[in-house]
Amino acid sequence: MGKLLRINTKEKTFEFEDVSEAYAGLGGRALTSRMILDEVPATCHPLGKFNKLIFSPGLLTGSPAANSGRLSAGGKSPLTGGIKESNAGGYASQKLAKLGITGLVLEDKPEGNDFSIIVINNDGVEILPAGDLAGKGNYAVMESLWEKYGKNVAVLSIGQAGEQCLKGASIQQADMNGRPGRAHGRGGLGAVMGSKKIKAIVVDDKGAPRIEIKDPDAFKAANKRWVDMLKSHPVSGQGLPAFGTAVLVNVINEAGALPTKNFRSGRFEHAQDISGEKMAELIEQRGGITTEGCHPGCVIKCSNVYHDKDGKVLTTGFEYETIWAFGAHTTIHELDDIAMLDRLCDDFGLDTIEMGVTIGIAMEGGMIPWGDGKAAIALLSKVGDYAPEGKIIGNGAGFTGDALGVDRVPVVKNQAFPAYDPRSCKGVGVTYATTPMGADHTAGYGVTANILSVGGTIDPLKKQGNIELSQNLQVATAAIDAAGLCLFIAFAVLDNEDGVQTIVDMLNAKYELKLTPDDVVALGKSILNNEKEFNRRAGFTKIDDQLPEMFKETFPPHNTTWDFTSEELSKTLSF
Amino acid sequence: MGKLLRINTKEKTFEFEDVSEAYAGLGGRALTSRMILDEVPATCHPLGKFNKLIFSPGLLTGSPAANSGRLSAGGKSPLTGGIKESNAGGYASQKLAKLGITGLVLEDKPEGNDFSIIVINNDGVEILPAGDLAGKGNYAVMESLWEKYGKNVAVLSIGQAGEQCLKGASIQQADMNGRPGRAHGRGGLGAVMGSKKIKAIVVDDKGAPRIEIKDPDAFKAANKRWVDMLKSHPVSGQGLPAFGTAVLVNVINEAGALPTKNFRSGRFEHAQDISGEKMAELIEQRGGITTEGCHPGCVIKCSNVYHDKDGKVLTTGFEYETIWAFGAHTTIHELDDIAMLDRLCDDFGLDTIEMGVTIGIAMEGGMIPWGDGKAAIALLSKVGDYAPEGKIIGNGAGFTGDALGVDRVPVVKNQAFPAYDPRSCKGVGVTYATTPMGADHTAGYGVTANILSVGGTIDPLKKQGNIELSQNLQVATAAIDAAGLCLFIAFAVLDNEDGVQTIVDMLNAKYELKLTPDDVVALGKSILNNEKEFNRRAGFTKIDDQLPEMFKETFPPHNTTWDFTSEELSKTLSF
Repeated sequence: MGKLLRINTKEKTFEFEDVSEAYAGLGGRALTSRMILDEVPATCHPLGKFNKLIFSPGLLTGSPAANSGRLSAGGKSPLTGGIKESNAGGYASQKLAKLGITGLVLEDKPEGNDFSIIVINNDGVEILPAGDLAGKGNYAVMESLWEKYGKNVAVLSIGQAGEQCLKGASIQQADMNGRPGRAHGRGGLGAVMGSKKIKAIVVDDKGAPRIEIKDPDAFKAANKRWVDMLKSHPVSGQGLPAFGTAVLVNVINEAGALPTKNFRSGRFEHAQDISGEKMAELIEQRGGITTEGCHPGCVIKCSNVYHDKDGKVLTTGFEYETIWAFGAHTTIHELDDIAMLDRLCDDFGLDTIEMGVTIGIAMEGGMIPWGDGKAAIALLSKVGDYAPEGKIIGNGAGFTGDALGVDRVPVVKNQAFPAYDPRSCKGVGVTYATTPMGADHTAGYGVTANILSVGGTIDPLKKQGNIELSQNLQVATAAIDAAGLCLFIAFAVLDNEDGVQTIVDMLNAKYELKLTPDDVVALGKSILNNEKEFNRRAGFTKIDDQLPEMFKETFPPHNTTWDFTSEELSKTLSF
Repeated sequence: MGKLLRINTKEKTFEFEDVSEAYAGLGGRALTSRMILDEVPATCHPLGKFNKLIFSPGLLTGSPAANSGRLSAGGKSPLTGGIKESNAGGYASQKLAKLGITGLVLEDKPEGNDFSIIVINNDGVEILPAGDLAGKGNYAVMESLWEKYGKNVAVLSIGQAGEQCLKGASIQQADMNGRPGRAHGRGGLGAVMGSKKIKAIVVDDKGAPRIEIKDPDAFKAANKRWVDMLKSHPVSGQGLPAFGTAVLVNVINEAGALPTKNFRSGRFEHAQDISGEKMAELIEQRGGITTEGCHPGCVIKCSNVYHDKDGKVLTTGFEYETIWAFGAHTTIHELDDIAMLDRLCDDFGLDTIEMGVTIGIAMEGGMIPWGDGKAAIALLSKVGDYAPEGKIIGNGAGFTGDALGVDRVPVVKNQAFPAYDPRSCKGVGVTYATTPMGADHTAGYGVTANILSVGGTIDPLKKQGNIELSQNLQVATAAIDAAGLCLFIAFAVLDNEDGVQTIVDMLNAKYELKLTPDDVVALGKSILNNEKEFNRRAGFTKIDDQLPEMFKETFPPHNTTWDFTSEELSKTLSF
C-alpha cells in the first residue's frame, strides 16, 4: 500500500501520510475523484485555497502491464466549475508509483507572485524557488530541468497559460525526449496548479525499488495475453501505429461527422490535406517519427514527432482531435500551420481541443478571418504575451463566445466539444451531455460502435441504443482510468471476450485479490457516482446535462438534429 | 386594458395584440416576469433568437400618481443566466402607457450586422435603419434623435457596450434634457437589445389620449395623501432632495458598511471627499443642479446635474452606488474622476455598479493600480474603442475576475455586489443571496431597518430578524415594481400605517377595483414565484443563493463575518 504525499503550497511544507480506510484500494481517477468529493468543498472557488490538485497513478501503473502508465490529475475545474479528472501519458505516473506515492496532493495557496518547483525523489521532497523558470514556456522549462536534474526525471509543468490561471490551461508532461508533448489538457487544471504557484514538479525514481507483484507468474501470463490482444486488434495493432489518431480524419469525414466551420457540416472539403495519411507522408519525407509510445510499456505507439519543411522538430504528439479543432472546425487546412498551433499549445500549456474550438469562435465573432492559419497563430501567441486577447482566448470557447457576443458556442458545462458531431454520432453526443466532465469524448467513446464497428454496431444517426452505449462506455472508462490504462486498450477489450478478465487477472496477480469483472463494473459506477455527487453539491442539475441550442440546427450531410430529451439523457448515469 | 406591441426584429414587422387572460391586470415587473416565464425557454442562449426583451409601464404609470413613472425592462439576463427585471425612470414609461401599450416585446433576432431603430407614435410603428447612429455613444444618439423627432419624445438606446453584446451593457433613457442619465442598468439587458440589433427606440405620445381614471375624485384624494406622505418623510422629503442618494456615503461609512478596497473594510478614509455633502457643494459652486426628478410627477427629485471645473455638464443622475463602486471600492477619491467614469458608463451604455466593481477587480488582478482614477478612465474607455480590454471589462466583475485569475470577486449569480457590505448590513446581504436577480440592493433594501431605522430597527450585525426583513422587503418591492412606483416611496410607506392602503386606493380608483393590501402582498409573492420558477428551469438551485467564499473573511470595523447557512437562506423566499 502506497502513501499520500501532501504538499502545503502556502507553508512550503510536505507530509507523507498513510492511505486511510476511505481511500484504500483506490488509484487513478478512482482516488482523485473520491478525494475531491471528500476534501474539496464543492462550492469553493477553483482558484482559491480550498481547492486541491491531486495526481494519482493507476492501480496497474508501475507494473509491467502493457499501456498502464497513465496519470490522473484531478481537482475542481476552473473551466466547468465541476469535478475534473484529466489523464495523460508521460513518465511521471510510473515514477510516482515506484516511489510508493499513491496520491500527490497540492493544498492551500500562497500569497504573492513567486512560483516554486517541487522536486520529489527517493530521499524525500524539496520545494524550491522557480527562479527564472517563471514566465517561461514548457519547452524551455523542461529543457532547463533536464539539464539540472538529468534526463531520467519526469517533469510536469505549466506554461504561461497556467501562470495566468486561464481556464484553458493544461499541465504538460515531458515526453521521452524532454519535450512537452503530453498533456493533462482538459478542464483547466493548469490554472489550479498556477493558482498554487507551482511552476513544475520533478519526479526522480532513482534508487526506488521495483513495484511489488504478489503473484509474478500469474501476472506474466495475463500480461502476455494482454499484449497479444492489443497487438492483434486492427485499430490498436495497425491503424493507430501507422497513422496515429489522425487516421480518423478521413474516417470521421467519410461518416459525415467531422464538424466543419463551427459545426455547420459533417464533411470538410479539405479533409485530405489534414488527414493522417497526409501527415504520415510528410513525417516520413521530412525525417520525423510516425510511431512512438507516450510512456514506457506502450505497445500501441500512436504518438509521433512532426518535422517542419526544414526537417526540424515542429511538434510532437500531434493528434486527431488537435488537427480537427484547429483544422476542420476553423477551416484551416495547412497542416504546418496546425502543427505550429499545436506546438504553441504545448509550449504555453493549453488544451488543444479547447483552443482550437476557441479559435473557431474567434472567427465566428469576426476577430480573425475563417481559415486563416497565420492569423490564428498570431492570435494564440497573445497568450504567451500576457496580452488582453490572450486572456480572452486562453479562457476557452465559452468565455470567448461571451466576450464576442457569439451565441453558437459548442460547449457543455462550459467545456468545448471534441471532434465528433453529436448529431452524426449520437452515442458520443450522449457522453458529451451527461459525463460529469463536460463535453468529452474520452469519457465514453461512442465512436466505437457508432462508426468503427468495434464492440458491435449501433446506428449513429438514431437515438436507439445510444444511451446504453454511452452508459456502458462511461462505466468502463472510469474503471480504465482507475487502472492507469490507456483508453485505446478499449478497442481490443470491446472485441475480445477475455478482455476484461485479463485486466482483472493482472489486478488480482499484482495485489493478491479475488476481483471479478463485476467488481470492475462496480468500481466504474462508484467513480461516476462520486463525480455526480460532487457536481450536485456544486449546483449542477439535469439542466446542465444538455447540449446547447445550436444543435437543434439540421446537420448535413445526414440532415440529422440532436433530439434527445432531458428525461432520456437523465437515464444515462442513473444506477 | 392596453395592448401588447410585438416587434419581430428579424422580419422587421410588428403587431398589436390584445392582452390575453394570462397577462390581464399585470404591469411592470409583474408582466415582464410572467411573460418571460411563459414565453422564453429558460435554457435558451440569452443572446439567441429565443430570448425576448420586454418593456412594461407599471399599473399606475401615466396617471398623475406621484413617482409612478418607472419602466420595467425584462428578459433572460446575459449576466446572470437567470430572469431579470431592471427598472428606470425617464419618459418612456409614461409615453408608452399613454399610447395604450402595456408591453413592448422585442422578439427573434436578425442575421448580419445592421442596426435598426424603432419609432412608436400614435399613428403606429416604424422600424428604420439606424444608419450612422450605429457605433455611436448614447449622448450622440439621443442628441441626434431629439434633433430629428423633437424634444418631446422619449428615447431608449444602447451604446457601444450593448452593440458588442457585453454582459455589463445597460439600456439608457433620455432624461429631461435629452442626456442618457437614466439606466436600465443591471443584468446586461443592453446586450439583449444589441443582439436583436435595435440601437434605439423612440416613443412619441403626441396625440394620444389621457390615461383613463375610473374614479377621478377618489384618485385625486388618494394622490394628495400620497404626495403629503412622501414630502413629509425625512428621507424622501429632505435627505434625498438635498444631497441625492450620495447622502448615504457618510451614513454607510459611519455604519461601517461601506465596502472599501474590494470589500476589505467597512470604512474608507477618504469618504468625506466623495460624500453627498461634498458633491452638493461642488454642484452649487459650479452651477449644476442638485435636485431634479427622473420623470414628470416625481416629488422626491433625488437626481442631479454635475458640472466640471469649467462649469460644463460632466454627468447627470450621479448616484450613491456609482460613487461607491468607482470610489471606495477602488479607493479612487477624486470626485471628478468618478463623475467622468459615470459619464463614460452612460455614454457607452454600461451599468455603473457592475463597472465600478469590475474596475476594482482589475486593480485586484494587477491590471491597473489601486486608486488610480486616470488609469480607470483609460481602461473603461477601451469599451468605447471596441478593444480587447473593453471586451473583458465590459463583461463585468465575474468575467474580469476569471480573465485575470482573481479569486476574490464579489458576485452572486455572477452579478456584482452593490454598495453595502453584507457582513455589516445582513438584511441586504440576505437579499443579495436570495433574490432571483443576482446581487441587488433594490430587490429588498434591508438598509432601511438595519441602518436608517426606517420601518423599525433590526441589528445589522446579527442574523436575527434579517431573513424576515429581506423577505418582507422583497415581496413589497416586487409589488412596487409592478405598480411603476419609484423604490424611494418605500421609506414613507414603511413608516406610515396608511402607506400601502394609499397605493391600493389609487389602483382601485384608476381601474375600478376592490383590491386590499393583502392582494398587493399576493401580487408580490406571485412575481417572486414566477421568477424563482424561471431560474429553477434555467438550472439554478439553492447553491446559487449563497455569497462567495470571500465573505467568510472577518470584516472591520465590526469584525463580523457572513454566517447564514444555505438552509437558513432558503427560507427567505419560501411561501
